Amino acid sequence: MEVPPPLVLKRPLYVPSKTLMGPGPSNCSHRVLEAMSNPVLGHMHPECLQIMDEVKEGIKYIFQTLNDATMCISGAGHSGMEAALCNLIEDGDVVLMGITGVWGHRAGDMARRYGAEVHYVEASFGRALSHEEITFAFEAHRPKVFFIAQGDSSTGIIQQNIRELGELCRKYDCFLIVDTVASLGGTEFLMDEWKVDVAYTGSQKSLGGPAGLTPISFSKRALTRIRKRKTKPKVYYFDILLIGQYWGCYGTPRIYHHTISSTLLYGLREALAHFCAVGLKAVVRRHQECSKRLQLGIEELGLEMFVSREEERLPTVNTIKVPFGVDWKKVAEYAMRKYSVEISGGLGPTVEHVFRIGLMGENATVERVDMVLSILNEAIQSSKLGIKTDLSKI
Amino acid sequence: MEVPPPLVLKRPLYVPSKTLMGPGPSNCSHRVLEAMSNPVLGHMHPECLQIMDEVKEGIKYIFQTLNDATMCISGAGHSGMEAALCNLIEDGDVVLMGITGVWGHRAGDMARRYGAEVHYVEASFGRALSHEEITFAFEAHRPKVFFIAQGDSSTGIIQQNIRELGELCRKYDCFLIVDTVASLGGTEFLMDEWKVDVAYTGSQKSLGGPAGLTPISFSKRALTRIRKRKTKPKVYYFDILLIGQYWGCYGTPRIYHHTISSTLLYGLREALAHFCAVGLKAVVRRHQECSKRLQLGIEELGLEMFVSREEERLPTVNTIKVPFGVDWKKVAEYAMRKYSVEISGGLGPTVEHVFRIGLMGENATVERVDMVLSILNEAIQSSKLGIKTDLSKI
Repeated sequence: MEVPPPLVLKRPLYVPSKTLMGPGPSNCSHRVLEAMSNPVLGHMHPECLQIMDEVKEGIKYIFQTLNDATMCISGAGHSGMEAALCNLIEDGDVVLMGITGVWGHRAGDMARRYGAEVHYVEASFGRALSHEEITFAFEAHRPKVFFIAQGDSSTGIIQQNIRELGELCRKYDCFLIVDTVASLGGTEFLMDEWKVDVAYTGSQKSLGGPAGLTPISFSKRALTRIRKRKTKPKVYYFDILLIGQYWGCYGTPRIYHHTISSTLLYGLREALAHFCAVGLKAVVRRHQECSKRLQLGIEELGLEMFVSREEERLPTVNTIKVPFGVDWKKVAEYAMRKYSVEISGGLGPTVEHVFRIGLMGENATVERVDMVLSILNEAIQSSKLGIKTDLSKI
Repeated sequence: MEVPPPLVLKRPLYVPSKTLMGPGPSNCSHRVLEAMSNPVLGHMHPECLQIMDEVKEGIKYIFQTLNDATMCISGAGHSGMEAALCNLIEDGDVVLMGITGVWGHRAGDMARRYGAEVHYVEASFGRALSHEEITFAFEAHRPKVFFIAQGDSSTGIIQQNIRELGELCRKYDCFLIVDTVASLGGTEFLMDEWKVDVAYTGSQKSLGGPAGLTPISFSKRALTRIRKRKTKPKVYYFDILLIGQYWGCYGTPRIYHHTISSTLLYGLREALAHFCAVGLKAVVRRHQECSKRLQLGIEELGLEMFVSREEERLPTVNTIKVPFGVDWKKVAEYAMRKYSVEISGGLGPTVEHVFRIGLMGENATVERVDMVLSILNEAIQSSKLGIKTDLSKI
């Protein structure tokens, strides 16, 4: 038996241009896209290691950290979650997951596979977790590791009390993992000042880089714990002591760990360079102003935000209740078909309940906000007309 | 404390153009590089899923398989090794690693972390493993899983008896994992006909794609075993049942598993399209002819191949003994400094003993072979002169 070459690969590659205003990825700038057509470099070439060093410095800046153990995992955002848990957890460790949407559950699934005893502390529907709720769960479970998403992209909820959680974790001799995949760039995050032990983020959201490399940083305290593990982390590919050696984090000679994608490094490097040139505070301010403008517009359209408390709304991924009688899918399809603009539906607990509008990186501008509001309104009106037409056929 | 934006990111990105004739990555064609500057697509957009389907068909062709469970892992080649082991191994399983260089040891490290009882069967230095050696180890250990690299890039050894190993594994009710990272495209590989249970390969070698996405395929037999596991695979990110669902492998609706890099998909798609257009047999023939020409040239230069038996030489990564009194590092540095051509040193057991010359994808041409031979000769002569000069100073 011989498998023939597939006919589909005789057709040219087809990539349409879209405005990505869902929960991510967001659009990359021309600078980032062009960088990725540069020739490939070997993973141990000095010029590649130099770019890795530059990326490392950029990550320290966006996390506001001086941690030596700052690097990228060669994988999607989920690989950052894996690496955080994999390195900190040993068999039987008690891990507590903060739940404000789907990501705490995802982390729980991963942690159980690593042999942890997993507990959850869940916020009320559409709310962030209060300090009291978390303290109560700490008292009940005495976790060794606590995980929370600063911003949960499935619900559009932001957790504003990370600083207090840093204190709490120190008090209970617990390690704090913060998922900033959807939040970084849209809100303040001070890794060192807030005593966060592990943070990771998405490259393809507010940073405006390509997906596939995940910035991550481990505190000195976390690193000390990892160095004292009784067993090796369960996954070689996520072993932060080995990856950090390749990234030159520990002052020891660089040792090959895996073949990093130089292409993605170029893109991420340029995204970070732009981010750093604009400045963290200015980036955050712009994301917040855009979200405020969107929220006002949503109100003017007679629509309602899913997260009732204004201070608990994530500026980067905005969740809007789907009005009664409207099919969210038709709205999203209309926006995509007519304008090539992505408006997304919900995820997990919010499926069919919300629209998700991402204002991240290139798309966090006043013009994009006004555009997406106008398209959302038109699409909703059109879907209502659609229903009437359907009814008239009966 | 405030971490300032790093000055290094104010400088422009610097990417020199090199001819990558080490063990990989190899150079990407203009077609592949240009594809990667296309705009980003969402990971669930129909156009992205279409490209994934096309990539899947391309992978089936290069592996010569009809396996449904054919997809990519979003990570470096090592993530393919992880996924193969992670999905097949449960606590206490006996796993046998074939050793012809470093990769069997790497797989052993991974498998132990997954809770396996790991044994090794090691070839004589510079030799492939014979059927007898492997059978003997099967009798001694009765493994549940057997791992072997078809081509070991650290030694330049090719394992020619995969077909027989497929039979052997069936006889012993064992699962056969074949690492084709360095070999695919340079030698025949017939996944289905040879009864291989898991195969994965590198995107950045003979395929000529970017690093960061790893093609992998699981046989129906392997999939049945995985579906009957008592415990979940230890890593969510490598869970082939979930990844395969995202890749549309099982006839069930696509479910989001992670955010795939559309950028890398474009590059891999174009690399596969070119590979398929040329045709598997023609690609293999070209790689083999180039290697033969290189070997002849090496002989003419008075140098010696590391692998003594011609039939055990990997055509893609050619290992050449470093002549007595020559510093391999000076040779490699000379080639890079003067010609921007990568000639690599050894890895693991071959460190300081061999040069490694990769003839893969774009670089598997007669012109490149002649060029690299002439540069190697010049660099070796120059390094000898260097020694003389040094001696004259005494």
